[in-house]
Amino acid sequence: MAKDKGPRKPRAETPKGFRDYFGADVTERKAMLDKIAGVYHRHGFDPLETSAVETVEALGKFLPDVDRPNEGVFAWQEDDDWLALRYDLTAPLARVAAQYRNDLPTPYRRYAMGPVWRNEKPGPGRFRQFYQCDADTVGAASVAADAEICAMLADALEEVGIPRGDYVVRVNNRKVLNGVMEVAGILDPNDPEKFEHERGIVLRAIDKLDRLGPEGVRALLGEGRKDESGDFTKGAGLGDEQIAPIMGFLKAGEFTRESTSIQQGLIASSEVFSRHINPVPGVLKALKSLVGASRVGAEGVQELETIASLLAAQGYGPDRIVIDPSVVRGLGYYTGPVFEAELTFEILDEKGRPRQFGSVAGGGRYDDLVKRFTGQSVPATGVSIGVDRLLAALRAKGRMQADTRGPVVVTVMDRDRMADYQKMAAELRRAGIRAEVYLGNPKNFGNQLKYADKRNSPVAVIQGGDEAAKGVVQIKDLFLGAKIAAEASHEEWKSQPAQTEVPRENLVAEVRRLLGAG
Amino acid sequence: MAKDKGPRKPRAETPKGFRDYFGADVTERKAMLDKIAGVYHRHGFDPLETSAVETVEALGKFLPDVDRPNEGVFAWQEDDDWLALRYDLTAPLARVAAQYRNDLPTPYRRYAMGPVWRNEKPGPGRFRQFYQCDADTVGAASVAADAEICAMLADALEEVGIPRGDYVVRVNNRKVLNGVMEVAGILDPNDPEKFEHERGIVLRAIDKLDRLGPEGVRALLGEGRKDESGDFTKGAGLGDEQIAPIMGFLKAGEFTRESTSIQQGLIASSEVFSRHINPVPGVLKALKSLVGASRVGAEGVQELETIASLLAAQGYGPDRIVIDPSVVRGLGYYTGPVFEAELTFEILDEKGRPRQFGSVAGGGRYDDLVKRFTGQSVPATGVSIGVDRLLAALRAKGRMQADTRGPVVVTVMDRDRMADYQKMAAELRRAGIRAEVYLGNPKNFGNQLKYADKRNSPVAVIQGGDEAAKGVVQIKDLFLGAKIAAEASHEEWKSQPAQTEVPRENLVAEVRRLLGAG
Repeated sequence: MAKDKGPRKPRAETPKGFRDYFGADVTERKAMLDKIAGVYHRHGFDPLETSAVETVEALGKFLPDVDRPNEGVFAWQEDDDWLALRYDLTAPLARVAAQYRNDLPTPYRRYAMGPVWRNEKPGPGRFRQFYQCDADTVGAASVAADAEICAMLADALEEVGIPRGDYVVRVNNRKVLNGVMEVAGILDPNDPEKFEHERGIVLRAIDKLDRLGPEGVRALLGEGRKDESGDFTKGAGLGDEQIAPIMGFLKAGEFTRESTSIQQGLIASSEVFSRHINPVPGVLKALKSLVGASRVGAEGVQELETIASLLAAQGYGPDRIVIDPSVVRGLGYYTGPVFEAELTFEILDEKGRPRQFGSVAGGGRYDDLVKRFTGQSVPATGVSIGVDRLLAALRAKGRMQADTRGPVVVTVMDRDRMADYQKMAAELRRAGIRAEVYLGNPKNFGNQLKYADKRNSPVAVIQGGDEAAKGVVQIKDLFLGAKIAAEASHEEWKSQPAQTEVPRENLVAEVRRLLGAG
Repeated sequence: MAKDKGPRKPRAETPKGFRDYFGADVTERKAMLDKIAGVYHRHGFDPLETSAVETVEALGKFLPDVDRPNEGVFAWQEDDDWLALRYDLTAPLARVAAQYRNDLPTPYRRYAMGPVWRNEKPGPGRFRQFYQCDADTVGAASVAADAEICAMLADALEEVGIPRGDYVVRVNNRKVLNGVMEVAGILDPNDPEKFEHERGIVLRAIDKLDRLGPEGVRALLGEGRKDESGDFTKGAGLGDEQIAPIMGFLKAGEFTRESTSIQQGLIASSEVFSRHINPVPGVLKALKSLVGASRVGAEGVQELETIASLLAAQGYGPDRIVIDPSVVRGLGYYTGPVFEAELTFEILDEKGRPRQFGSVAGGGRYDDLVKRFTGQSVPATGVSIGVDRLLAALRAKGRMQADTRGPVVVTVMDRDRMADYQKMAAELRRAGIRAEVYLGNPKNFGNQLKYADKRNSPVAVIQGGDEAAKGVVQIKDLFLGAKIAAEASHEEWKSQPAQTEVPRENLVAEVRRLLGAG
């Protein structure tokens, strides 16, 4: 040990972009995830916990958000292999589905919760380790599986405390978009790789509809767009006749967005209301005409129709789940339906301006991920909940009622009677009350009360030699004490109404009374 | 995507030494950890979840088990720093205690549960990622903190289902051992680094007492020892007069081990029983004479005395917690009391031979870990539970009664009536019953029942067109069905007593009846 005593001490710092979670941060997240797991379990999903480490080979090229160049994984070499921390829970699922394909039931419904790691440049609100919470069905080709995931997502949001009306699950289908791209002449069914670059720009432009508005998107489909800072983003270079069907596609979503707003009471016009209360038929009709003769496009519209009718039959109406063509989802690997859960209430941002909370979950169908390993196409669909965002939303709405009270603190007046104090704490615990003995240096009694304050303790128990001789204990109501200290006059304060003396045998009863009242 | 279709497919394999956990493996561990967290919480401990990644600098040289050369961490370079996965939960705690020392309460009681990673050569039963579950108190110099940890450990073991009598927490003190080493002439208080090599050999030899017996340990203290394979392990090279106090130290523990066996009913001799029922005074007396004039040795005996009396006052007698000089704990960083929880019941090993289950938790006082960062000594003590071993013990004793039943499966007889089937599943779920619709290809009905079988489903729900027209459903008791299939004659089997037809509106009631009976 003496060797470590050199002048250079290690820095006590969480590595850049990582963070530590204390107390309620841990228990509140756990409470939320337990509720979500309950919903998934009731739907027949089984838990899966894969190793945090994968071979880079197994993770493959399926890194998310390909337009950010700094993107990556934490990786290291080991003999001939490269190993890496998983960057999501989907890639490991694809590996598991291939590796255990003879043992797993088909379809395989699984949920997974845990940290993932991204080797990104850290920034404000951008962390390199965060939680995901996923549910996926592997081996079900039917869009009934997609519908189930959407319905389950709605149930999960309500279960954790987001009431109906405060969220909406938006559903789209990549095939419809592909149909529209075919019509726009940037997708050739006979040469799927042609125009890949242009389609990438189109996808990202649509993804930014919320932020840029229709005119901004149109500019990105054409020559390009100059943003407020003066920076120019090169566009896809499409001509007007190519842009038209894509803009029409986005417009088809307006029905939905309007009527969602109505459902959520943001627009009060009863005329608009009666016209758009069920937007599904209108949207589907518009999409059908937009995809024209495209086979894949027609298939996509048909799938959306099936999803909508399955959901409607189970009572998931447009107040909870809607068809919305503007949903794209960035990931390249989606092949069919895509979905996104958005919280529709407003919160105040750091500058006090109201803004929509936005997306907390997303997913879709990815039929080609398992194929990488086995060569055989395996249909799969699933959703991922952004755990930190959903937690932040629940906190913003005051829906996390975690008990942040600290333990009852039994103070130490007489170092030699530690056993007596530990007995008191044990009695309280046996009665189900969180309690501990002060274990710092007991010399300075003020420090003991400061400690109780820091722990947010509701009650302190005090027994000096005199009290022990008389067979009594002092019970101090620390919350009331703090209130009195803040508000009362000096005389009131000195009379110590927050402190009661009770017989030693009444310790548990008196503490319980105070906690009940608190 | 087409680019990935080359001839070289990635291997679908968990990296060597890692593993995946499915279904009950996940839920059983979670149930156990939740119970332990409950005990820690009631004792006033707060949860802490640090990042999985630390700087190598912060992890420092405190790698465990220094006598294994392949030992290490998973590390990678990033700019000027080296980052690594944490190898335990104690090193991150030391970093946090230093980093947040102005914000945390003193003492700081925290618990942590999560995976840790070791870059070891994988082997049978040796994994490179595993769970730990720790509780530590930082900033409490009093051995009352050590006593509390020991008592809490006993409570935690009982809470998860290890009954009193099936475990024992053994307590020792490094200071006593240092006192004995001083007497043996291999520790010089004025030059603590001298004889470090010899002391290392002695520590490891004592740690092997269980396996090698007293004669094996004696050989390792002297010239060395040849094992059954003929391999020779070089000893510490001590002379007989140096070996004597160390062997006396080990012998002092015999009282304890004998009386522990008595308490646990393994020895029935009432004569031995009456002599040794409370071994503590005898052990302490023996230790006192062994440490002779060593100041640190006397201090250690005094601390053990305090711990024993604090525990006795709270009713933690030698049936649960004992003083045992043979407990050493491998880690170099312990500076005072050390403890270990051992399960005392026998299980059958893979060859059917009975053997003691052994250690499931260990810990001790480490007063120098935080000092590395701050230069100031911070007293700390804590325990780590080996999660996988404790789980294995509970399973071996049949104490994990996880509900391994799968969901009720609503089968699909008519693809077009998917919405009806989903409605049935939703009704069952609303009644709190785990249920799902079969989402594979419904063509082959046999596959649907095979699926239900693989899921260990208790009940299948069946409704074809005829049943739908009549307003009824078929409810199939799959557990009874399996029993009949195994035992019944062909005629009995054909009469299908495991299948009942009920009106559609009785679906939930009938399924509930069957599940209650099952």
